[in-house]
Amino acid sequence: MKYRLLALTGILLAMSNVIAENSAPTAIAIHGGAGTIKRSSFAAGQEAAIRASLEAAVKAGYEVLRTGGTSLDAVTVTIKMLEDTPHFNAGKGAVFNAEGKNELDASIMDGATRNAGAVASVHTVKNPIELARLVMTKSPHVMLIGDGAEEFGRNHGIEFVDPSYYHTEYRWQQLQKAKAEHDRSEAGTERWYSTVGAVALDQDGNLAAATSTGGTTNKRWGRVGDSPIIGAGTYADNRSCAVSATGTGEYFIRSVVAYDICARMYYRGISLGDAATEVIMDELPQMGGDGGVISMDIDGNIAMVFNTAGMYRASVDVNGTVSVAIYGDESN
Amino acid sequence: MKYRLLALTGILLAMSNVIAENSAPTAIAIHGGAGTIKRSSFAAGQEAAIRASLEAAVKAGYEVLRTGGTSLDAVTVTIKMLEDTPHFNAGKGAVFNAEGKNELDASIMDGATRNAGAVASVHTVKNPIELARLVMTKSPHVMLIGDGAEEFGRNHGIEFVDPSYYHTEYRWQQLQKAKAEHDRSEAGTERWYSTVGAVALDQDGNLAAATSTGGTTNKRWGRVGDSPIIGAGTYADNRSCAVSATGTGEYFIRSVVAYDICARMYYRGISLGDAATEVIMDELPQMGGDGGVISMDIDGNIAMVFNTAGMYRASVDVNGTVSVAIYGDESN
Repeated sequence: MKYRLLALTGILLAMSNVIAENSAPTAIAIHGGAGTIKRSSFAAGQEAAIRASLEAAVKAGYEVLRTGGTSLDAVTVTIKMLEDTPHFNAGKGAVFNAEGKNELDASIMDGATRNAGAVASVHTVKNPIELARLVMTKSPHVMLIGDGAEEFGRNHGIEFVDPSYYHTEYRWQQLQKAKAEHDRSEAGTERWYSTVGAVALDQDGNLAAATSTGGTTNKRWGRVGDSPIIGAGTYADNRSCAVSATGTGEYFIRSVVAYDICARMYYRGISLGDAATEVIMDELPQMGGDGGVISMDIDGNIAMVFNTAGMYRASVDVNGTVSVAIYGDESN
Repeated sequence: MKYRLLALTGILLAMSNVIAENSAPTAIAIHGGAGTIKRSSFAAGQEAAIRASLEAAVKAGYEVLRTGGTSLDAVTVTIKMLEDTPHFNAGKGAVFNAEGKNELDASIMDGATRNAGAVASVHTVKNPIELARLVMTKSPHVMLIGDGAEEFGRNHGIEFVDPSYYHTEYRWQQLQKAKAEHDRSEAGTERWYSTVGAVALDQDGNLAAATSTGGTTNKRWGRVGDSPIIGAGTYADNRSCAVSATGTGEYFIRSVVAYDICARMYYRGISLGDAATEVIMDELPQMGGDGGVISMDIDGNIAMVFNTAGMYRASVDVNGTVSVAIYGDESN
């Protein structure tokens, strides 16, 4: 009798899983940057705080999906939370450029319509991801930069902050260290790319992707990396996948990383995991590029692939399983 | 005897053609923008002047290739000439933004190394393509924007001009007309996208691509189109092809047009012509995008494809045949 009950329960569970997957699978994956993240890197409590921030953000995004919200809303809510914490190089925690200022970039893309919005080099926008989304929905354009992008935001009720909002002692010390290293050796700073990103699938079967960053510490000359470049740092297309990238942005632009993963799936019929692995573990290192991606296909399969020691990452998969990880030797 | 001599000459010519193609085929193709170009659009002599400019520029680029120069040098020389004429929306002939200023964008890519350089929203650089090339060769970055990009250029001996250099009466009147139309209907301006671009194959078998633009008349908010976006407006990879695009930039960014043509060739094994035709005649119009591309594969095959009434274009193919065309009903 006991075995019969177990068998029946098993069948019912299997059926309910199938029904749930067929009706409306939803999933979300996020990153907080890839790089040379070592267990010895953290002050006491810092690692736990970062894990808690990742978990809160991914759960907030998943709640949007679970209650019938769109993937665009899920990635926006999640990125906003990551921008508002000081732990990641985006929004509040943005790094300083060589002039001691913060230059923020963000982009978002809708897999259903392939609409997209991006901003680069904004200085006083509290949540660059919200401005990128307004560019997508309220302008005929995809990319706005600098003062012009901020002027557009002012016309649409975006929240602005004083530049001092972005001042965190941690990032300020990073800049001083980078300047000292640059003066000594031109070698640049520690390779740690804590851009943030999110990809999601909603109950209507639509994918979305979004990315936000403060760029690189001590950057000069109005440098723009891959985060605000549609195709490089962010891409979403219901026909293939949604991708958000983090790493040495120049290589990601030259390899068109986010779109290339989608193109390999779409044109060659390979799986998301294989496509992401080829690009991040093979194509990028051949050029000299470091970093990773989070990516999701139309069935909600998740691939989080990086060629660095670690990548801050978290996900809620189609079964509702929550995962938070940092190091390469942790399972996703 | 006369016939024998002719026959012998024919055989020798045929042999010399074959030898030239096998040893070191070179070719170049350029565009001066696509759009609703009608025969009735031109003032007397204007069409002839534009054709002469296209022919001079493509021949100058081909001369670089013929004498053993690199494809990067060929596209740079060609784009510089197109930037220096007032006929095209790049450099000297750049359109005005809503504030009556000129914002110039350019990008360049090396198919051998997939190195790339791009600048966006520069205001006083005489030849943006030269600055983009310096970003590629003299900085660790791919994309620099605004004042920062100009500061980088000053450190590397770039030629600057007074903003009045870009003042052409033709473009100024275009802005006044666009503003009047915008005030009336929000419908915007005539669809005429005279960005310039070039692709080339050199004797070493290396491809290169480059694009330069003044953006769109009456543009606001620091809008950036596809021209300075690697993957969208410009791409080059010896494994597949070199592409320069022109058109409604937002759609070209969302479709990652330049890279997508290369990806379709590389991943599906189809010809350059088929790949370019699929993207420009099928994919883009489905989204609502207008424009075209010039493109070249590693054998020097040229595909110049546009879904608009015309595209300013010229080429010298692997046989040395020169072609200049404007309208859709002209053969390339």
